[in-house]
Amino acid sequence: MISVVLIGAGNVATHLYHALNKAKNVDLRQWYNRSLPSIESYKNQVSITNNLNDLVEADVYIIAVSDDAVKPLSIALPFENRLVVHTSGSVGIHDLDKKHKRGVLYPLQTFSKSSELDFSNVPICIETLEKEDFKTLSTLAKALGSTYYKINTEQRQTLHLSAVFVNNFTNQLYRVAHEISDAKSIDFDILKPLILETAKKVQHISPYMAQTGPAKRNDKKTIKKHLKLLEHQDHKAIYQLLTNAIKKTHGR
Amino acid sequence: MISVVLIGAGNVATHLYHALNKAKNVDLRQWYNRSLPSIESYKNQVSITNNLNDLVEADVYIIAVSDDAVKPLSIALPFENRLVVHTSGSVGIHDLDKKHKRGVLYPLQTFSKSSELDFSNVPICIETLEKEDFKTLSTLAKALGSTYYKINTEQRQTLHLSAVFVNNFTNQLYRVAHEISDAKSIDFDILKPLILETAKKVQHISPYMAQTGPAKRNDKKTIKKHLKLLEHQDHKAIYQLLTNAIKKTHGR
Repeated sequence: MISVVLIGAGNVATHLYHALNKAKNVDLRQWYNRSLPSIESYKNQVSITNNLNDLVEADVYIIAVSDDAVKPLSIALPFENRLVVHTSGSVGIHDLDKKHKRGVLYPLQTFSKSSELDFSNVPICIETLEKEDFKTLSTLAKALGSTYYKINTEQRQTLHLSAVFVNNFTNQLYRVAHEISDAKSIDFDILKPLILETAKKVQHISPYMAQTGPAKRNDKKTIKKHLKLLEHQDHKAIYQLLTNAIKKTHGR
Repeated sequence: MISVVLIGAGNVATHLYHALNKAKNVDLRQWYNRSLPSIESYKNQVSITNNLNDLVEADVYIIAVSDDAVKPLSIALPFENRLVVHTSGSVGIHDLDKKHKRGVLYPLQTFSKSSELDFSNVPICIETLEKEDFKTLSTLAKALGSTYYKINTEQRQTLHLSAVFVNNFTNQLYRVAHEISDAKSIDFDILKPLILETAKKVQHISPYMAQTGPAKRNDKKTIKKHLKLLEHQDHKAIYQLLTNAIKKTHGR
């Protein structure tokens, strides 16, 4: 049984709360947030506090707050030599105050407030300074149902960056498609199965092998047609840059 | 019962073959390809031919060949006044020889040779010149298990273009993430659940609402960090262009 204190009440913290609360072999001892009202509705399920001096003892303290708040919060914790981890993709492990045993538990997934997330779909990237702490965190990850990976700070920052490509940028391409099709009164629903299938395809073959389309074939006629069809300069620029990127990747 | 003759043996044609062959209420009468060897292995399941003069009578002739071959093939068909449709996203309906009753049956999906596709995940875009023919094609789409949409030539070309954004371009972003993470010896598997979740999210909320991340927040510190982390000029250019696109979309 691993005992945990959770710190913070944003998206990641709230999803962690639900997962920790549900997990067998996890004893969620306390939930801290500097503003109590945002976690008050949980007070019958877990001990809550907004006072760092009231924090109880636990095996792991999970700081799930905004990047800039990680360091000052780790300094403000009124104890030492306990395992304190943050959940950020871009904050270094050494940004945690060195009075603590330090670690990172970075869940690589997109968290929306609304829908509950199944942690079996949330890979957890673990970094620690001590082997023993890695063991604790990997046991915790397993208790959440997650797959875990040993990832150092540089790798984690690269993953955070990669996530921007496959999540934020991909989502912006969906947005462009939405704009283009809306302009011609086309139901966006028509594109949804393709969006899903494209993501599914790279679950078992590499993106390189999965590529198709006019850019890969260097089908100049279709590319020209598409560029003519695009009415906005911003859309044209994306089309051209990514078409050239595909051509280059596939040696065209 | 709708009787069909299938023409062509590429990716789309082969997937259509399997779906047509399996569908109740569809009588797949014949499969034509100019080269017989590529369909010879099916000769015990369906009548095959490489001679246009041998084509039997049917309610619908589906021309599933490369874009450039659609027109000459429709001219070469040795009959008239029958319903002849193509399956291309970018070829106009009037590119079919006017001696035929003409239509388009455009399945909007990514087709790989290897894996069999469930046509309930393949929206079919239908265009016809006559109402009666629309009825025939929508019945055929339903028999395949597909959702169908009435889509004119301009809309279909826009869908084909939108598909390049959500499929080819998105896949190239996956590829970039693969390159970036490979360079730091990171297992690409870690990113796969995020890729899938990103696609799932826009199945029920709009891409606009689904957006998150540093560009949307205009988090200059993280953006600067990411640009510094990117080693290739090509990756930097994509990062910058899409970051600016997101900022613009979200009024930053």
